[in-house]
Amino acid sequence: MTEQTSFAPPGSAAELEEGSALTPKFDADGLVTCITTDAGSGEVLMVAHMNAQALAKTIESGEAWYFSRSRRALWRKGETSGHTQRLVEMRVDCDQDAVWIKVEQAGAACHTGHRSCFYRAVAVGKGGAMTLEFKDERAFDPKAVYGDSTR
Amino acid sequence: MTEQTSFAPPGSAAELEEGSALTPKFDADGLVTCITTDAGSGEVLMVAHMNAQALAKTIESGEAWYFSRSRRALWRKGETSGHTQRLVEMRVDCDQDAVWIKVEQAGAACHTGHRSCFYRAVAVGKGGAMTLEFKDERAFDPKAVYGDSTR
Repeated sequence: MTEQTSFAPPGSAAELEEGSALTPKFDADGLVTCITTDAGSGEVLMVAHMNAQALAKTIESGEAWYFSRSRRALWRKGETSGHTQRLVEMRVDCDQDAVWIKVEQAGAACHTGHRSCFYRAVAVGKGGAMTLEFKDERAFDPKAVYGDSTR
Repeated sequence: MTEQTSFAPPGSAAELEEGSALTPKFDADGLVTCITTDAGSGEVLMVAHMNAQALAKTIESGEAWYFSRSRRALWRKGETSGHTQRLVEMRVDCDQDAVWIKVEQAGAACHTGHRSCFYRAVAVGKGGAMTLEFKDERAFDPKAVYGDSTR
């Protein structure tokens, strides 16, 4: 099977919502939003973006690929860290501009060393000040994985 | 407590990632991405956006408010349908450009009548064709809730 890097163009709202064809609605930058959760715990691990190539590679390979907006580059999750994500299921939302992938996460998803990027909860403190509470410990030391330069 | 519609500006990467102050990094359109999950089941219900006002209103009121990019308007979830979302917890991601809210969903989250917007799974069929499999039944009839006009 050759790699599919193009998808059929999106149709009408009714076709997008009620159809059984994957016709992603990429935005002006050619991206869809991707929400990634842990297939076991259901925890949201990260949110990122995919272009058509990243989406196709994820489906074809069964491993998560993204498109980095800051680096303007295709990005295989875990390429540097080894913290890959094995695809368990992919869902698409009503208007097909977002996907939800359930994955088996090797190591930790976040470059900070936390398992999830969402490691802090919003709390309302004195005088309505909004503070953040850390909800977990690091799973790895980012300096040991990425070196000092990325910090 | 008066309604807070402004947040402190984001600091350095280290402050954003390691700090205990909520300093959202709004994009060029003044928005952060919001992932909304069912606090009970963990299911991803929807993905949407919040501007500073929607974020503040969600925190202050304990009910989900969003900003509709298509309508360019603040939007209280469930205002038309009654399908409100009670905030159970809010998380923020490493670089503070996305939030994750866990909610108690009244009725169903999706305007199509499905409980979640992510009601279809991607399947790879014959010849590599990518098809969608419906994973649930409608929870409500959208015509009965919104009228015919929205379809």
